[in-house]
Amino acid sequence: MLVVMQTSATEAQIEAVCGRIAALGLRPHPMPGAQRTAIGITGNRSAVEPAALEEMPGVAEVLVVTKPYKLVSRDLKPDTTVLRFPHAPASIGGAALAIMAGPCAIESHEQAFAAAEAVRAAGAQFFRGGAFKPRTSPYSFQGMAEEALKIMAEVRQRTGLLIVTEAVDERSLELVADYADLIQIGARNMQNFSLLKRAGQAAKPVLLKRGLSATLDEFLMAAEYVMSEGNYQVVLCERGIRTFADHTRNTLDLSIVPAVQRLSHLPIIVDPSHGTGKRNKVTPMARAAVACGADGLIIEVHPRPEEALSDGMQSLYPEQFAALMQDVRRIAPILGREVPAPLVPAAATHAGATR
Amino acid sequence: MLVVMQTSATEAQIEAVCGRIAALGLRPHPMPGAQRTAIGITGNRSAVEPAALEEMPGVAEVLVVTKPYKLVSRDLKPDTTVLRFPHAPASIGGAALAIMAGPCAIESHEQAFAAAEAVRAAGAQFFRGGAFKPRTSPYSFQGMAEEALKIMAEVRQRTGLLIVTEAVDERSLELVADYADLIQIGARNMQNFSLLKRAGQAAKPVLLKRGLSATLDEFLMAAEYVMSEGNYQVVLCERGIRTFADHTRNTLDLSIVPAVQRLSHLPIIVDPSHGTGKRNKVTPMARAAVACGADGLIIEVHPRPEEALSDGMQSLYPEQFAALMQDVRRIAPILGREVPAPLVPAAATHAGATR
Amino acid sequence: MLVVMQTSATEAQIEAVCGRIAALGLRPHPMPGAQRTAIGITGNRSAVEPAALEEMPGVAEVLVVTKPYKLVSRDLKPDTTVLRFPHAPASIGGAALAIMAGPCAIESHEQAFAAAEAVRAAGAQFFRGGAFKPRTSPYSFQGMAEEALKIMAEVRQRTGLLIVTEAVDERSLELVADYADLIQIGARNMQNFSLLKRAGQAAKPVLLKRGLSATLDEFLMAAEYVMSEGNYQVVLCERGIRTFADHTRNTLDLSIVPAVQRLSHLPIIVDPSHGTGKRNKVTPMARAAVACGADGLIIEVHPRPEEALSDGMQSLYPEQFAALMQDVRRIAPILGREVPAPLVPAAATHAGATR
Amino acid sequence: MLVVMQTSATEAQIEAVCGRIAALGLRPHPMPGAQRTAIGITGNRSAVEPAALEEMPGVAEVLVVTKPYKLVSRDLKPDTTVLRFPHAPASIGGAALAIMAGPCAIESHEQAFAAAEAVRAAGAQFFRGGAFKPRTSPYSFQGMAEEALKIMAEVRQRTGLLIVTEAVDERSLELVADYADLIQIGARNMQNFSLLKRAGQAAKPVLLKRGLSATLDEFLMAAEYVMSEGNYQVVLCERGIRTFADHTRNTLDLSIVPAVQRLSHLPIIVDPSHGTGKRNKVTPMARAAVACGADGLIIEVHPRPEEALSDGMQSLYPEQFAALMQDVRRIAPILGREVPAPLVPAAATHAGATR
Repeated sequence: MLVVMQTSATEAQIEAVCGRIAALGLRPHPMPGAQRTAIGITGNRSAVEPAALEEMPGVAEVLVVTKPYKLVSRDLKPDTTVLRFPHAPASIGGAALAIMAGPCAIESHEQAFAAAEAVRAAGAQFFRGGAFKPRTSPYSFQGMAEEALKIMAEVRQRTGLLIVTEAVDERSLELVADYADLIQIGARNMQNFSLLKRAGQAAKPVLLKRGLSATLDEFLMAAEYVMSEGNYQVVLCERGIRTFADHTRNTLDLSIVPAVQRLSHLPIIVDPSHGTGKRNKVTPMARAAVACGADGLIIEVHPRPEEALSDGMQSLYPEQFAALMQDVRRIAPILGREVPAPLVPAAATHAGATR
Repeated sequence: MLVVMQTSATEAQIEAVCGRIAALGLRPHPMPGAQRTAIGITGNRSAVEPAALEEMPGVAEVLVVTKPYKLVSRDLKPDTTVLRFPHAPASIGGAALAIMAGPCAIESHEQAFAAAEAVRAAGAQFFRGGAFKPRTSPYSFQGMAEEALKIMAEVRQRTGLLIVTEAVDERSLELVADYADLIQIGARNMQNFSLLKRAGQAAKPVLLKRGLSATLDEFLMAAEYVMSEGNYQVVLCERGIRTFADHTRNTLDLSIVPAVQRLSHLPIIVDPSHGTGKRNKVTPMARAAVACGADGLIIEVHPRPEEALSDGMQSLYPEQFAALMQDVRRIAPILGREVPAPLVPAAATHAGATR
Repeated sequence: MLVVMQTSATEAQIEAVCGRIAALGLRPHPMPGAQRTAIGITGNRSAVEPAALEEMPGVAEVLVVTKPYKLVSRDLKPDTTVLRFPHAPASIGGAALAIMAGPCAIESHEQAFAAAEAVRAAGAQFFRGGAFKPRTSPYSFQGMAEEALKIMAEVRQRTGLLIVTEAVDERSLELVADYADLIQIGARNMQNFSLLKRAGQAAKPVLLKRGLSATLDEFLMAAEYVMSEGNYQVVLCERGIRTFADHTRNTLDLSIVPAVQRLSHLPIIVDPSHGTGKRNKVTPMARAAVACGADGLIIEVHPRPEEALSDGMQSLYPEQFAALMQDVRRIAPILGREVPAPLVPAAATHAGATR
Repeated sequence: MLVVMQTSATEAQIEAVCGRIAALGLRPHPMPGAQRTAIGITGNRSAVEPAALEEMPGVAEVLVVTKPYKLVSRDLKPDTTVLRFPHAPASIGGAALAIMAGPCAIESHEQAFAAAEAVRAAGAQFFRGGAFKPRTSPYSFQGMAEEALKIMAEVRQRTGLLIVTEAVDERSLELVADYADLIQIGARNMQNFSLLKRAGQAAKPVLLKRGLSATLDEFLMAAEYVMSEGNYQVVLCERGIRTFADHTRNTLDLSIVPAVQRLSHLPIIVDPSHGTGKRNKVTPMARAAVACGADGLIIEVHPRPEEALSDGMQSLYPEQFAALMQDVRRIAPILGREVPAPLVPAAATHAGATR
């Protein structure tokens, strides 16, 4: 912490502040300047609140300097974390870009397989799809719950795609942890600390989306919650923030990608679908995400967006996603990345096998 | 919904859009204008997504016009909802302002009673205090949990103050519903829809805080979630939104008070403590909240803010709160409101009684 | 400035940063902490840019601490500035609230006098009205220019009201400085530094509106621009900032009133008309502005808002303004302020005089 | 415009609104819906303000639908505008990306030539550099004014680079129009309408930067101001908006690139230097800008950023810019764009010539 004194602060006031700091068991470092004095503070400050100093006579401002995160910090772990998945060639955070795609919500067996087959053929390694949908209105479609999870598990078995889907509370988290390969915590739950702690106890990796008004520090602290419970397999995801700008549903803040990579060892991917809310902006922003160094993409693709029960406006048509993947394959090498070849579905490799 | 066609849209394109609308079971109302044609849509539109129309040739824009909320709407219930409490003279939404005050967190029996006695004497009818604290850092003080609830129940018994405290997940909600008179749902959980639904099943009224980046519509829809489960006793609370402004921790958006009152019958109170994050701004903004028509205040008061385990910087000293209440008593009548006389503690009325 | 080193920074890196600081002619103050070292910097730092240090090995962050404003600061001038006007009883910044009211734009002789008479009778001391209108569209009504200024001068002569009107460029500023008593610099020009400097050379006081996305520091620095040219008669005005909130045209940030009063000796008034953009929010927010300690109000009043050429949606009807003034008269004393009695028009006092 | 009636609106109220619309010379289109009635309005609405209708009994809301821009619209001019420059191979808006680079401010002859030579060699066709600097503080370096313009003119003559520099008021605009090839209007002046009109009368093309809190509509309307005066040579520039996010100086809103391209025929480039404010974010975001389809880049490059008089923290080192250009050359073809070969300086081609 740093205490900035007023220009008019007296010597006695400066001494009083130093005395209070010492009384708190900390060490004051007064620095007389040309115009005013600042007082640095060092020592173990876990329980110190700026309030103890801010209202003292002569104090202009108290600044908190130290960053509060530990486990997420690149200071502690210089190498980027790479998530690997048993029995699957996919990874997140390594040279290969992680490509996740699928419909906003699982609506039917037929729709899920149509979407999954399309995104697999185009090069995705992960199949996304909502089973539990956090909707602004209680009267909107809320998802197919466990039935959707079962469909997704079948998708995995038949296509080889790994499954990512959102948990919205503790009950759904247990189900999702059973069925999925990657547990998504949505933007609206980024500071649902109970859910974060529960995710930190799960045996599956966690995809943590940035809250609509989360600062970088809050975003990293949310990941710290998960990690502090022992689950170090966390992937961050930028999905747009709330600003005054009204030409997109949210403002996709791509600059957080290099910002996270500077401070943290955790991988970060980008969701241009929610990040823009408009289909015609998804492809340009997905290309931009890869170009700024994101470790992957998560994109909504629906076989018939105009009939989607949710988020149809921002879902790509399968052929648009395939075209996008062509671009991504060309941009990736410029950043030393690559897009793996499309998975060969289990049905093809294990023709005549047990299922 | 309203479909705005491009200036260059052809007659055939306009007809195609009208045809699609009719095919969806709705009724199109084409309105040829000087520059371009707009097409109004009426009919039951529960499952219609704008995506069905937005990408058709000649379409410039699709606007969703109808507001999605029902139970919260003043259209349906013109009279303001007044919450009353059994066995207590307090109310929320009527002529009497609801005054809630107390420490950010319950830290000890002694601290709680010191705070409660101070706020009771100054005129509060509700005692606030955190038992479960949603903290940005997992390493910060997380609250005393049920122990705090027991202290608060004792405060109620001895002072007559009603208890308001936050529930952060389903488990804590059950406990809070047992002990408290008013269940607080915090800003970070405003779109934790599972928690909202659970609160909608509780037998106690709900204090719902606005999320840091919630629009008015989203705020009302969160209340709609609670009400849609059958709990109609909901109080809204403005507590500051996230903006670029850095002279306060949040930007207190008082204009939402008249905005809510115009659209909804639910009462709305203001939290100038979180809304500013700075002690020296709390009193001016509390006065302003009353002057703009708020139905009450919720304010952090700590017997020794400089020693508080959380939010010390924004907690009033007891004497500051008492001075504020003097001002509030004078402003209230200008708006046809009043501040009830301080409660007489049970100890005084029932001297020699069972306790 | 304060340089925060990484936890992993070596002694040699710390020494290198200290050396660079010394080489810049400044004095380094290293403070070894439990986790990391911070280095305070003192000395004359006018030409130092953080860039000199931020990219050095081992540096985590560079913080600029010292506030850049001087003339606006309460540190230098503890007493609030009170603007007085020759030959008029009005003032700004003293015990009397400054009340400014009138139409968005001067539209005709008849409209101006109808508005002026109404606001004078209700208690305004200043008549506002646009002669030069900064409009978002080049095709919107741009104001009556000098013709409007002449009408306003006639209003002053006949009613005793002082005149406040906006200058949008250097040419209009010269005209406004000739005719008006208070030169308004609008929100969109708050960082039009050439115009600010020119206003700093004018012989009339300046009303400086906060820009839509101006921080407190930027707002005060804009005033510093005016004052640095020798014009110390500056009044600040909060008029709403741009946020995601869509229930008002702008978000009125009343907390800047106590924030300015803490840091600066300049008076600050509030414009709830532009600050909300909706007539039904103006009265509640005007009351709130007075209750939080504003030094005055500037409000749009139009004799027939539904026929206004601009801003009709946010203009009060004369009777609404009169009712608001009744409320303001009752709130003001609670803050030790007062609203002067309505001016007696010149026509009445000088019956039979030269005009 | 569209008038949305309350659910409880009576037939008489609906008729009254229709009557008022007709009385304004417009045509009402009532659309009775399942829950409520909406009334569309068509006709010449140039002087109609929603205020005329919004406060009528039974009215819930008035929506303005029609977009106000004309000359900037792709509706009117489907083909993208390509700016060409006499006697120079550069263009903006065509297949070739426009690359502009140079120091924040021209500080000396030596610094300007060092920067210019570096950016020319790496492939820039435009040399940027500030002569008139709009600075937040009146005490900061304000630029070398005409002396800087003369240096830049010499740079053009010797290197072949076209010159882009900012005009901050009418006086500087005349000078800039004399010396430069592209007149920059800065973000803080985006709604300085007098300056925009003056730029609209200039004989040189205009580079218009987006204001810190400008919506897409406001941005396009600012361009409309320039074009409405007869200057159709306008280039837009995204340079970051103001949000709550604090990990960058501004939030670079790349999604406005495809948004502008959908609505307008004007080219749009991106400034990742101001858009992030941090050197280590410039390269990733510049790559992203090209990948999302921007028509060019404008980047701050300084031969010795740590000694820069302004914006040193966000200026690239020459070798960083050269490396970035390597990436840009590889990304451009993926979008069907190209980066022209570096200009051959005049000195080389005209060896032994008159200079």
